[in-house]
Amino acid sequence: MKKIAILGSTGSIGRQSLDVVRSHPDLFSVSALTCGNNTQLFREQLNEFKPALAVCKNKEDAERLAAEFPGVRFLHGPEGLAEAAAGSDAKTVVNALLGMMGLRPTYEAIRAGKDIAFANKETLVAGGALIMKAVRKSGVKMLPVDSEHSAIFQCLQGNEGNPVRRILLTASGGPFRGFTAEQMRQVTRQQALKHPRWTMGAKITIDSATMMNKGLEVIEASWLFGLPPERIEVHVHPESIVHSAVEFEDGSVMAQMGNPDMRVPIAYALSWPKRLELTAPYGVEGDGLIRPLDLFSLGALHFEKPDLNAFHCLRLAYEAMERGRSYPIVLNAANEEAVAAFLEDRIAFWQIGALVEEALNAHKPADAEDIETIETIEKQTRDLIKGKLH
Amino acid sequence: MKKIAILGSTGSIGRQSLDVVRSHPDLFSVSALTCGNNTQLFREQLNEFKPALAVCKNKEDAERLAAEFPGVRFLHGPEGLAEAAAGSDAKTVVNALLGMMGLRPTYEAIRAGKDIAFANKETLVAGGALIMKAVRKSGVKMLPVDSEHSAIFQCLQGNEGNPVRRILLTASGGPFRGFTAEQMRQVTRQQALKHPRWTMGAKITIDSATMMNKGLEVIEASWLFGLPPERIEVHVHPESIVHSAVEFEDGSVMAQMGNPDMRVPIAYALSWPKRLELTAPYGVEGDGLIRPLDLFSLGALHFEKPDLNAFHCLRLAYEAMERGRSYPIVLNAANEEAVAAFLEDRIAFWQIGALVEEALNAHKPADAEDIETIETIEKQTRDLIKGKLH
Repeated sequence: MKKIAILGSTGSIGRQSLDVVRSHPDLFSVSALTCGNNTQLFREQLNEFKPALAVCKNKEDAERLAAEFPGVRFLHGPEGLAEAAAGSDAKTVVNALLGMMGLRPTYEAIRAGKDIAFANKETLVAGGALIMKAVRKSGVKMLPVDSEHSAIFQCLQGNEGNPVRRILLTASGGPFRGFTAEQMRQVTRQQALKHPRWTMGAKITIDSATMMNKGLEVIEASWLFGLPPERIEVHVHPESIVHSAVEFEDGSVMAQMGNPDMRVPIAYALSWPKRLELTAPYGVEGDGLIRPLDLFSLGALHFEKPDLNAFHCLRLAYEAMERGRSYPIVLNAANEEAVAAFLEDRIAFWQIGALVEEALNAHKPADAEDIETIETIEKQTRDLIKGKLH
Repeated sequence: MKKIAILGSTGSIGRQSLDVVRSHPDLFSVSALTCGNNTQLFREQLNEFKPALAVCKNKEDAERLAAEFPGVRFLHGPEGLAEAAAGSDAKTVVNALLGMMGLRPTYEAIRAGKDIAFANKETLVAGGALIMKAVRKSGVKMLPVDSEHSAIFQCLQGNEGNPVRRILLTASGGPFRGFTAEQMRQVTRQQALKHPRWTMGAKITIDSATMMNKGLEVIEASWLFGLPPERIEVHVHPESIVHSAVEFEDGSVMAQMGNPDMRVPIAYALSWPKRLELTAPYGVEGDGLIRPLDLFSLGALHFEKPDLNAFHCLRLAYEAMERGRSYPIVLNAANEEAVAAFLEDRIAFWQIGALVEEALNAHKPADAEDIETIETIEKQTRDLIKGKLH
């Protein structure tokens, strides 16, 4: 029985992690859960999974729920989050938090010797040097939950000692796949919010439209797999069936494929190196948790090279990682502020990249290997962008 | 330094195996080589690789070459082949022989504790039960050289203990991809000999046109990977880039891809679990032994379900393996005789499958777990087909 803590259990990744736990009650138990504002769902989760520790964002919510669940220990705020990350008896901590909030608890969990199933890009984009150093020191396992990074991780299994030549990181291409740089300048807010394939939060939908999302994934992969960013080649693949691939020095390209479903990488992160039975048994009617791949009805898988002129943000992400040090922090923070401004209709779509580029150009790089420095650079960048928008 | 014996070193797989040895002289040395009739090439190979043991098909060739290479021990015929397989100091024996000739030396090599890099389908199609029993007993490793089986083997690495749900075995589809059963009845000899992608020997070109080749691979995979044939699904994939794939119970499909080049699976069989550096280093101009995959210029990978009515031979192969026991021996031997008759213009293309089906229907099954029984059933089947053609 593996004990698990889930940071951000009411979000999409958190909920799907609990789907996996629910499907294999013999394998997993829940030590700690944490929530943001969705206390109604959190209440249901506490009822079902009965963790020893529960953490709310707000003190009031924690106190209110504590009265309802006398057997559960309740905490709140960043200290509560840190305790859920590092203080429970969990073996694996799922970091399903949004944004920079995930950095500190991840760091604390690693120092406490927990394996990390992480779905929180910012942790590695901003804190890659810090986090990977802590991982090396404590010897814990970083188990990616993002479908692309999980695919890469799966392709690396059984290849210990075989150097990677190149990573092929796939991307759906978003709503503006095939657009020229000129067309990208005409994009409206409504167009940008309409992703052809997934329904997601507004921030990640815009990041998908600019392909900044893929840029952040390149940086994440560069840290995780120890490869320079130029060896991580984004492949636009509109069907989103090949979740990513790894090329070895013998010319073999190992790929992981499947119908898109986050529960597959989540389950692999929780049960690695074992795979759980998530599909219906072969030949048995009925769906299982996961629908098996059917290449016959798909017919074809397509691959295109992304246009780094049209997708300015993707190019900036490569540049930020190549420049290194504190540049990726600036990239991420400037992008968050610019996307927020775009969603408030204060800037045009193309200005997102322009603002990020301005922030990168204005930045004086520093080593960023402690949380305080990272948070300071974060804040300075946000202030810079806010200043430009007044 | 790994010592290698190559049975059939002047054939296509033999020559490419020596390409791999040549490219990594620090890793491999050659203990024994055997040839058929191409003594001129064999002489060059002996000069270059200096094996301690050399085996010719004919006594005269062995005696003639012995005079030229006083430091080399020469043998000939089936006994020589058995000695090259089992008697040298090789750690790995490459079975690159053609047809049933490969069965006995493979069996002897396994009993002598050699790992087998095998490219000889008949060995497993006819002798699967015998060979796999010997492998279990001696604990040697079966390292497939066929690109499909190597791909499957690669996809299984790092998945010890993870049950396979399904194998996706890819096929180019041959020259008659998309033909209906009706169109298949009109196929001429000239059309059948013209493979759209590869230049190969006449027998294998016809097997590719009938897809019997893929049927034999299904049987081989069934033995190697311990899966019933219905779980080995042939996927017609005209680009021949995905060499095969494995689906696990979590819905993940691991695939191995690359430009078609037999030296990749050969090298993997020789150096497993290590991968050799066969491509040029990343970012360095120049070709290396293997050209890296370029999905951008390919653009798309296609997948189709094979039509088992049009490709009668593929259906027969599934049926022979499902019936089990001695049926696959009959399938293979009847096919060899029928293809030979077709190449001599004695029967029409569609009659190949018809003759194989007649032989299967006429067969009284037996257990075939020793070489003598296998060879007897082989011969009976050939005689049956020959009788029908008079």
